[in-house]
Amino acid sequence: MSYLIGEQAKLSKQMCEEDVNRFADISGDYNPLHVNRDIAQKSVFGRKIVHGMLVGSLLSAVIGMELPGPGTIYLEQSLKFLNPTFIGDTLTAIVEIVSILNENKGILKLKTQIINQNDELVVDGYAIVKAPKNGEIRNESN
Amino acid sequence: MSYLIGEQAKLSKQMCEEDVNRFADISGDYNPLHVNRDIAQKSVFGRKIVHGMLVGSLLSAVIGMELPGPGTIYLEQSLKFLNPTFIGDTLTAIVEIVSILNENKGILKLKTQIINQNDELVVDGYAIVKAPKNGEIRNESN
Repeated sequence: MSYLIGEQAKLSKQMCEEDVNRFADISGDYNPLHVNRDIAQKSVFGRKIVHGMLVGSLLSAVIGMELPGPGTIYLEQSLKFLNPTFIGDTLTAIVEIVSILNENKGILKLKTQIINQNDELVVDGYAIVKAPKNGEIRNESN
Repeated sequence: MSYLIGEQAKLSKQMCEEDVNRFADISGDYNPLHVNRDIAQKSVFGRKIVHGMLVGSLLSAVIGMELPGPGTIYLEQSLKFLNPTFIGDTLTAIVEIVSILNENKGILKLKTQIINQNDELVVDGYAIVKAPKNGEIRNESN
């Protein structure tokens, strides 16, 4: 394994209305806070917010594409939703190796955070993953 | 508030390849375990698996649509991915109120589990949510 504590990767994405509607379709979560402008306007947020699980999915992208990358198997993900995400917000998902739980099996603990364009922490949490062995899938994917 | 410890809701869904590909598009997670048949066949799973965060999103649907239902605000979600989900599997997401953390504010702790058609536990975890006040959004949504 060639993973080091402190190693970090990140990814940024602007959240658009189409993504929210597509996420509602595939998850089945049509909570009006996400898809109904009139009801969302009357809520504490004053407008539609992006599904928390869609926001959290950016962490899956960093983990599956960058660190540890292609071939990684997800074992755990915890998510604290600390601030709302609005349509049009640009989020940055940041993943950092904080602990190597089992070096032989490639089990890593990752700090997983998402911030918005105002540097507000939107999601805080951690993940546990099984990293691919070097030369196995990590190098095969491109 | 009219929520009771032990109250439960569930939702079932068959996971199809189109959902996996759409989830890859909106999350940006094109880990080959999910989208590349040849590489997935060489993995420990022997075939493509559904993204863990897409599986976990079924819990968001139960929470946002059923219990506590429309208007609910997600505060936390933890997910342990205990078994893989394959394309074609039928999952049942089950949410149960296990604790009322703050009755005035409607803060509930929910046990959140997902089982597959073989009664295998696929995801285990819990959520913390802020339930809508009665008559506020819960009754307005239909």
